[in-house]
Order: sequence, then structure tokens, then C-alpha cells
Amino acid sequence: MAHKVALTGIKPTGTPHVGNYLGAILPGLELAERADCKAYYFVADYHALTGAQDRERLIHETYEVAATWLAFGLDPEKVVFYRQSDVPEIFELAWILACFTPKGFMNKAHAYKAATDRNRDAGEPEDAGVGMGLYTYPVLMAADILIVDADLVPVGKDQVQHVEIARDIAQRINHHYGADALRLPGHSLRAQTAIVPGLDGRKMSKSYGNTLPCFLPTKKLRKTVMRIKTDSTPPEEPKNPDDSVVFGIHRALLDADAEKALAAEYRSGISWGGAKQLLFEELERHLAEPRARYEELMANKPLLDEILESGASKAREVSVPVLARVRDAIGIARR
Amino acid sequence: MAHKVALTGIKPTGTPHVGNYLGAILPGLELAERADCKAYYFVADYHALTGAQDRERLIHETYEVAATWLAFGLDPEKVVFYRQSDVPEIFELAWILACFTPKGFMNKAHAYKAATDRNRDAGEPEDAGVGMGLYTYPVLMAADILIVDADLVPVGKDQVQHVEIARDIAQRINHHYGADALRLPGHSLRAQTAIVPGLDGRKMSKSYGNTLPCFLPTKKLRKTVMRIKTDSTPPEEPKNPDDSVVFGIHRALLDADAEKALAAEYRSGISWGGAKQLLFEELERHLAEPRARYEELMANKPLLDEILESGASKAREVSVPVLARVRDAIGIARR
Repeated sequence: MAHKVALTGIKPTGTPHVGNYLGAILPGLELAERADCKAYYFVADYHALTGAQDRERLIHETYEVAATWLAFGLDPEKVVFYRQSDVPEIFELAWILACFTPKGFMNKAHAYKAATDRNRDAGEPEDAGVGMGLYTYPVLMAADILIVDADLVPVGKDQVQHVEIARDIAQRINHHYGADALRLPGHSLRAQTAIVPGLDGRKMSKSYGNTLPCFLPTKKLRKTVMRIKTDSTPPEEPKNPDDSVVFGIHRALLDADAEKALAAEYRSGISWGGAKQLLFEELERHLAEPRARYEELMANKPLLDEILESGASKAREVSVPVLARVRDAIGIARR
Repeated sequence: MAHKVALTGIKPTGTPHVGNYLGAILPGLELAERADCKAYYFVADYHALTGAQDRERLIHETYEVAATWLAFGLDPEKVVFYRQSDVPEIFELAWILACFTPKGFMNKAHAYKAATDRNRDAGEPEDAGVGMGLYTYPVLMAADILIVDADLVPVGKDQVQHVEIARDIAQRINHHYGADALRLPGHSLRAQTAIVPGLDGRKMSKSYGNTLPCFLPTKKLRKTVMRIKTDSTPPEEPKNPDDSVVFGIHRALLDADAEKALAAEYRSGISWGGAKQLLFEELERHLAEPRARYEELMANKPLLDEILESGASKAREVSVPVLARVRDAIGIARR
């Protein structure tokens, strides 16, 4: 039986934190293990270019996100793991897709609408500060998906639209030329993962500056955990786990039974110092090994390049013939 | 001295006619002979995709326009002559450029403005029927120009804007990264060529259906010329050359002295049949040899492919390092 192709893009967006680990990386790795799918994961370095345009940062964060997924156990022998920028067929396909994309599709895309809403609220012209990267990235995303004949794109709710746009463009092309030039992708809605609180109790997020980075050195990790704000309940008194950031982070690392047991400890009275020590130890259990692998990988960029390039070679075994198929369907000369 | 690079794009748009020959091909070939420039000419097959989306037609017209220029004397040993679709670096660069292109640039582009004007006049929504190909093609055009380090782009007045957009985007990137990542192109305004009248006296244009195709077989060419409408002035009476379509086409093929002599013949009385015979003979002088070469080339598509692919190899000797230079400047991994 031919396996379905499941595609996931990973945007390099800065030092990975425990929220990323629990909300995206762990579920992503589980998905990669599904026996009925061939998983493709790519580092979307060219998508990052619509945002911060900083040379050193883009280089660093691209390696960082690749090393992070590998450190947490992504197996590049099983998963096709590549950099977007190593698959040039994506960009040529993006132009072809653009020629079959009504401009109205882009006008309705979430990110563009959010930008124009902000501008209107600020009394600015609608398109102030809007670049063509932001405006057209759904077309590039459609190319990311269609170039590997993806069947399935696991997404959060807010990204369903992207897969629908890809599918719609593909249908238009197939219909216009009466050919099966492009495989029609579908989405699978990712299960909602628990929201991990950050150090200040709000959702852990880079933009709030409240994150617990995954790969802090042990000592620094402990220090950071010990500094999490708690209330002034005396050490021996019962604590309400549901009010506690320490518990909020800790529970996300546990299964249901272990979470129950921990909550009981809180209610029966545990010192904040003790609770934090338990959290720290749990974090170490999850992070110590990946941290060592991460550091090894980040110290060996040629190895990272090699892994990603080998993934790109595998991706291009698909992308080259897919592009050839589309070129043939639309009447562009065989290369 | 390093030669300047002059770039010209040729859109495949149907059977070439005498108006194309005199208005675009002849001046283009003269330009290609300029000793101070290295000329790059490319068949813009992917730009054609924003218009008629017909597989067989795109294939045919791409060969047709290539064969036409070669038949009229474009020397692929001197000119780098290639198909746009054979230079994949263009499309990747286009994405990079998009990330540095304010959306406002596209809102002001002529073709898009014309489309929205038509929609407004028809009481339609502004973007009705507008595709992302039409909307974003100035970015692709900028990539066409910048990918070969073009210094100079000979254009008509209505295309100055395209070169300015390319230059502006290149400047933004160079400035943002403090690097000479992209060469800044300039335009040179093409001399206004004489407007060639069509068979009905209006400007010769495919859209008026009044053209004299370049490569009609001799008999058919003569028949077409003989059918040009004339007034009922009797054979021996003086004719006003300035009122005559036959003269209007004929003069465009002559130098000033020959034109004067021909006008004198008209005024001293020449039969319309005689005038048409002279025009036919002049056309044959210009077209007979190119017609034979054209037919030879169109009967030998593998040769056309070979010529264009060899041109693409030369173009890629430039485009590959240019893209590498830009990738390095913005922080995308070395390929």
C-alpha cells in the first residue's frame, strides 16, 4: 500500500522553549511515528524572511530549530527532513500557482487581514508597511504542500485556510487543463494541546518574554525554575495546584495519574521550594538528554547541513518529477 | 573593459507580423550588435502564463517567437538567448525580492491599475478577475533583470516603471544588508519606431486582426498584399502616398532616399496594382530568406531546444552565482 504523505512546516522563530516542546514538537514527533504516513518535515527558512530580516539570526535560528527537532528524537532516516531553501522547485511552482490564484484569495488570508485591520485601527492606509512576502505567502505555502504531493497537512485551526487555498488552486489547475497535474491535499486538525503557562502565568510565548528555554544549562534551568513567582503560603500549608504556575508547567509534563499524585502532594502541603525542585527534576528528565544532543549538533554545523541536505535529496526525488508533471500539463518546455 | 549587460524579454504572443518585425525585432537586433554591450534576450514563456492559459498554444508560440528572432538573424553565439523557464534561479530570487517589495508598488503598477480601472468602470469589484500572476508579475520581471546582473534594460516608455521597481527593490536589499548583493539596473529608452499601418489602415496589431504575418508563403503573401483596400483613383492618375496604406507599409521598409523616390512614383501616377507589386517585392526581399530559415527551424524543434538550452547554460553561469551571492547576503544556507 502506498503511504500517505503528511507534510509539516516548521518556521525558525528563535530559541525553542518548553511551550514549543509540549505544544508542537512532542505532538509532531508522535505524528511522525504514524505507521500509515510518510512524514515530511521542513524548516521554512524562506518563510522566515517575511518577518525579521536579520542575516545572522536567520542562519542561527534555522540551525537551532533543526537541531532542536533532531535532539528531541526526529529520525531523519524515517522522516524526510529538509530545508525549504534546498528545494528550488518550490519557487517555480509558486509562480505557476500564482497564475491560477484569484487575488481575492489573498485579500481574505488571515495574516493580511490582521495587518490591514491594525492599519485601519491606527488610521493608516490599509497597506501601510505590508510587504509582498506577507501578502503572497499563502501561495508559497501552497507550493510547499503541492510540490511533494502531500495528502495530508496537520494544522491548527487558524491554518486550515492555507490548506484550503492550496487545494483550491490545485483543483483549478487540474480542471483547467483536464489533467491530474497536482495531488489534492487535505488537512487534519491537530488535537488542541494543553496551554503551557509561562513564568508569569500567561501563556508561555516568546512575545511575552516569559519562556523557559528548552536547552538552558542545568544550573541555569534550576535557577530559573527557583525564581518562578509563588504566593506567600507558608511551606507546610496546603497549596491550590490550580492557582500555581509551578504546577501549571509541571502537569503538562505528566500523564493523568502522575498529575493527580502531584496535585495531591500540593494539597497535602509541600513547600514551594520542594515543588520547584520536583518541577526542575521533571524538566531535567525530559531535557537532559536532548540538551546534550542539541549541543553536540549545534557544535557540528556540517553534520546538520549534511542531514538537511540528505533530506532535501529525498524531497527532490518527489519535487523534481512533480514540477515536470505540472510543466508538461501547462505547456512549459521539458527541462 | 567589462561589457555592460543589456537584457530584453520577449513575450511569446502569437504569429509574428510585419509590425513586430519593424517595431521590435529589427531594432532589437541592431541593439544586439552594439559593441559595448553583452546582450541577453530571453523568451518570457512564464510571463505568458498570466494571459491565455492554453497548453498547445504556449508550446507553439514559444517555439514560434524563438524561431522568428533566429530567422531574422539573432546570433546565438553572440547573444545569450534563452527561455525564462530554463533558468530556475529567477523564481527563487522572485520570492526573495517579494519579501522586500512594499505592496504599494504593485498597487501602482500599470497593468494592475488598468484592470481595476476597467472593473470600476464596469461597476465590478476592484479585483474581479484579477489573478496573482497579473498582480505580482513586476516582481518576476525584477527577478528576470536582477538575476543576470543586468546593467541596462532597453524599454518603451510604458515599461520604464518595471525597471524602476527592480532597481528600487535591489536598492532596498543592498541597503538593508549593507551589501552589494544585487547590481542596480537602469533603463534606456528605446527610440520611437514608425507605426506600421495594418491592412485596414489602423496600427498593425494582432488585436485588430489587421496584420500581415511575416512568414506567409510567397503566393499567399502576394494575395494578401493585392487585397489591401485602395481608393478608386484610375491607374494612370497621381496618387497621394500619405493617404495610402500600401505606401504606409512600404515606406517602413525603406530608407529615406528610397522612400522619397517611391513617393515620387505615386505622385507621378502608378497603378494600385503596380504599387502593390512593388510592396510585395520589397516584402519578399526582406522576408524570403528569413522565411526559409524560420520554416527550417520550426521543422526542427530539437535544434531550437538545443539553441535555447545552450543559451540557458550561459545565462546560468551568471544566475547561479548571483543567487548564491543574494542567499549569502540574507542568511540562507549555501546550497
